[in-house]
Amino acid sequence: MQYPSQVTIIEVGPRDGLQNEAQFVPTHSKLAFIQKLWEAGFTEMEITSFVSPKWVPQMLDAKDVMEKTKDRKGAIVLAPNKKGIDAALSAGAKAVAVFIGVSETFNKKNINKTTEDAMSELIPVIDDLKSRGIYVRACISTAFHCPYEGKISPTAALALCHQFAEAGVDELSVADTIGKATPKESFALFSLLKKQLPAILVTAHFHDTRKMALANIYAAMLAGVDRFDSSAGGLGGCPFAPGASGNVATEDVIYMLHEMGIHTGIDLHLLVEAIEAVKPYVSREITSGYYTSKAGF
Amino acid sequence: MQYPSQVTIIEVGPRDGLQNEAQFVPTHSKLAFIQKLWEAGFTEMEITSFVSPKWVPQMLDAKDVMEKTKDRKGAIVLAPNKKGIDAALSAGAKAVAVFIGVSETFNKKNINKTTEDAMSELIPVIDDLKSRGIYVRACISTAFHCPYEGKISPTAALALCHQFAEAGVDELSVADTIGKATPKESFALFSLLKKQLPAILVTAHFHDTRKMALANIYAAMLAGVDRFDSSAGGLGGCPFAPGASGNVATEDVIYMLHEMGIHTGIDLHLLVEAIEAVKPYVSREITSGYYTSKAGF
Repeated sequence: MQYPSQVTIIEVGPRDGLQNEAQFVPTHSKLAFIQKLWEAGFTEMEITSFVSPKWVPQMLDAKDVMEKTKDRKGAIVLAPNKKGIDAALSAGAKAVAVFIGVSETFNKKNINKTTEDAMSELIPVIDDLKSRGIYVRACISTAFHCPYEGKISPTAALALCHQFAEAGVDELSVADTIGKATPKESFALFSLLKKQLPAILVTAHFHDTRKMALANIYAAMLAGVDRFDSSAGGLGGCPFAPGASGNVATEDVIYMLHEMGIHTGIDLHLLVEAIEAVKPYVSREITSGYYTSKAGF
Repeated sequence: MQYPSQVTIIEVGPRDGLQNEAQFVPTHSKLAFIQKLWEAGFTEMEITSFVSPKWVPQMLDAKDVMEKTKDRKGAIVLAPNKKGIDAALSAGAKAVAVFIGVSETFNKKNINKTTEDAMSELIPVIDDLKSRGIYVRACISTAFHCPYEGKISPTAALALCHQFAEAGVDELSVADTIGKATPKESFALFSLLKKQLPAILVTAHFHDTRKMALANIYAAMLAGVDRFDSSAGGLGGCPFAPGASGNVATEDVIYMLHEMGIHTGIDLHLLVEAIEAVKPYVSREITSGYYTSKAGF
């Protein structure tokens, strides 16, 4: 079994993790969390989101967070549209994440657009970002399963990835949004992506909803993927019930990789310190394997 | 990626799952749980344990449970020693599980014997069981990591497996007792086992302590393993903290396998009914992915 000897973890906790918290996390606490994550060794991080505060009040301090982090290489901000991107750039963003779902129904419900219309609008935006030297990360939701449409065909997921590649993005973050994909599906889609788009950075984004995230990461590594999104403490995601998981927890990913002899550059103890720093401000319990078992054997 | 098209799940909930419950589960509830599990389609199940009630008071009704189940093919009882085995046979057991750790320190602490002494005592017992036509399952604890000794060498684990094979057991259940093994270790050990002992049934027993259980099962399947122990509801194991997992939950294993197109013969809905039947009697929360997410997408 061949897999990469080195893996990059893109920490999404400060953005994807916190955006689902109902209670506002004070800006200074967000900044402390982010600072501790940089100290733990991350080189790429989603730090905030320039969305309407009406939709996501948690991110109303995006400008303040950006101002304090803008000189940091690898700080990525999410923006849903032209307006958000303009605000991000004004605040000094050097790396922007855009997003779209493969599923038509998912896009209709989330951004009130068809997949085709959403993509048509994004192409000139990406073109503009690239002409300014901005790093562009394309987040592709519902690449395996959709909560409304069910199974998504790999053909449809691949087609959207090709459109983004042609539009000139630097990175594709391909997501199993509802945590329903199996290692079979992970290996199949990522094998095709790595083969068909060898020149682009391919990142896999898994949720641990059905406890398959680490299996999917292992399968994606067997397909050659060496970049994974994850969230410190497993923050975020769309849990359906108490105890349910969302984003795969960074500490569980790092633990597995290190135990397999794979280099990540992350210090697990400092990562736990970052989690402890934000823990008092979040409602979600930290149920990751590494966190709950670290007192044990 | 090649893996088996059909997998056998050995349900260990009624024994391994319940033995860690401090509160006694009434015998009729245990029997109802077991009955519902048979109805869900399991063909092999650890139903009880003939241990001293001083050690494990939960299992003081072993004889009663056995009496009601003895004519069922695939009903396995655990016994730690000659005395337990004799009691099991008197109660009508047709399949017996014996156990031993690879780790010297683990055996000393658990059964107050060296690994060599424990094995020397087991060999004539196994011989006797086989001469009576009893199915013998050998459960091998700490095959990857030991809570006291740390990493266990695959050479030591393999050596013990070979001793059991020579002693004539029907099945080896090889366990990652503290849920610390990675898919790398799972693939490595099970590849060697399948190659070196092709004539014996090889079962993998994983704990989800660090959320790696499904990754390890996937890796073991890539190594050719087609038998897995698991516990309905994730009952049992040695959790270190609230929210920590023990035995991998049967429903999570079955869900993944079915979604991969692998046949198990188990009805997931009936399995959930079995979990609901025993849930009022256990203190552990059911935190498996399938159970907590089944109301969602």
